[in-house]
Amino acid sequence: MNAPVPPTTTLPGLRERLRRFAAERDWDQFHSPKNLAMALIAEAAELVEHFQWLTEAQSRALPPDKRAQVADELADILVYLVRIADKLDIDLLTAAAAKMDRNEIKYPVAQVKGSARKYTEY
Amino acid sequence: MNAPVPPTTTLPGLRERLRRFAAERDWDQFHSPKNLAMALIAEAAELVEHFQWLTEAQSRALPPDKRAQVADELADILVYLVRIADKLDIDLLTAAAAKMDRNEIKYPVAQVKGSARKYTEY
Amino acid sequence: MNAPVPPTTTLPGLRERLRRFAAERDWDQFHSPKNLAMALIAEAAELVEHFQWLTEAQSRALPPDKRAQVADELADILVYLVRIADKLDIDLLTAAAAKMDRNEIKYPVAQVKGSARKYTEY
Amino acid sequence: MNAPVPPTTTLPGLRERLRRFAAERDWDQFHSPKNLAMALIAEAAELVEHFQWLTEAQSRALPPDKRAQVADELADILVYLVRIADKLDIDLLTAAAAKMDRNEIKYPVAQVKGSARKYTEY
Repeated sequence: MNAPVPPTTTLPGLRERLRRFAAERDWDQFHSPKNLAMALIAEAAELVEHFQWLTEAQSRALPPDKRAQVADELADILVYLVRIADKLDIDLLTAAAAKMDRNEIKYPVAQVKGSARKYTEY
Repeated sequence: MNAPVPPTTTLPGLRERLRRFAAERDWDQFHSPKNLAMALIAEAAELVEHFQWLTEAQSRALPPDKRAQVADELADILVYLVRIADKLDIDLLTAAAAKMDRNEIKYPVAQVKGSARKYTEY
Repeated sequence: MNAPVPPTTTLPGLRERLRRFAAERDWDQFHSPKNLAMALIAEAAELVEHFQWLTEAQSRALPPDKRAQVADELADILVYLVRIADKLDIDLLTAAAAKMDRNEIKYPVAQVKGSARKYTEY
Repeated sequence: MNAPVPPTTTLPGLRERLRRFAAERDWDQFHSPKNLAMALIAEAAELVEHFQWLTEAQSRALPPDKRAQVADELADILVYLVRIADKLDIDLLTAAAAKMDRNEIKYPVAQVKGSARKYTEY
């Protein structure tokens, strides 16, 4: 008799589900941050692969089947991202908020607005 | 006078903050899924770089300054992940739950438990 | 009647063969450096995938079938590397020699020899 | 008194130079294929970073300083590619020739010529 799967409608819920998934399979031994970083970038590359021969415009207007495949790659990236953060005891949303606090200062609207050149120089 | 920054304690909150950040700077023009996928993998590689010369054991026990840098890379990855999902109108947590539903079936505990060989073959 | 395939026992030979391959298929239109960089990193990720759950020791002693797959990924990376260099009129071996000239100075033997800590700090 | 640096005008020459570079620094201990694959993809990502906010057209017409930086990234990728191939005793040019033999068959000119759709489907 299995305990019910934890709800995954929040990041902490997903984190719990992934913990249980790995524990049940005795896979924590493989989940060093080093290995998880490799797994994450391999999934990121599968995402890139979907877009590599598309124009930017095509990438903005994916047909439904392609969009579903991309959703699947994004899910894989999120799974490994949550997993590595958990292993290192890092709170993803706190880290992202801190990063955006810095980005708001680093890229002042008045200086960078609407300029590709400004953007790429930063 | 700026409107207050949206709270980023949930993924939808972070998504809103990123939307506003890009809109204020007129950067949506650069944020095609193709470009965002490239930005995401570049951040993933910065994560990998932190681990490339460490042993697995070292990667599990990072010193505080290194751990803070890794947290920063995870934040960057999450930012681009949320952004690309937003641009493609994909709900990350729904996609991750669907993926884990499939993974639970694909990797039955009884068959894969505790076996590196089974794991890598899958 | 096709002209004979150019010999690919040197990098310039491979470059010629790839030029012809793309020209015959009218694929140069897709081979912008931007797209080729994406294709290259996608292949690099397939390489990473082979190693992500292996220990370092296992990665040094691949079974023959795995080694053949890895050779295939290395080939894919080389193909895109030669192709992007060609598109940007960059001589790979000259660039690598210049890089190693700088590395010899940047990492003096007396300072870095045999020290993991020195290595990872650089 | 150092022995002269081997010429690096061919891939085998570069391979020798890299062997000596690592041996002198006692760095072979870090150069497991697993670690080298990580280093390679980190360099590939630095390449991607140069192109991520450029249009394809811009990526085809880099200004000289940017082009020099890209040459440097390509050099880094080649260095790690040669190194990992050496560690696994794989001949890169032989592997690439074998791959192109297969590609010539897999993508027949008559079927794929000039068609983006055909191309991306393959």
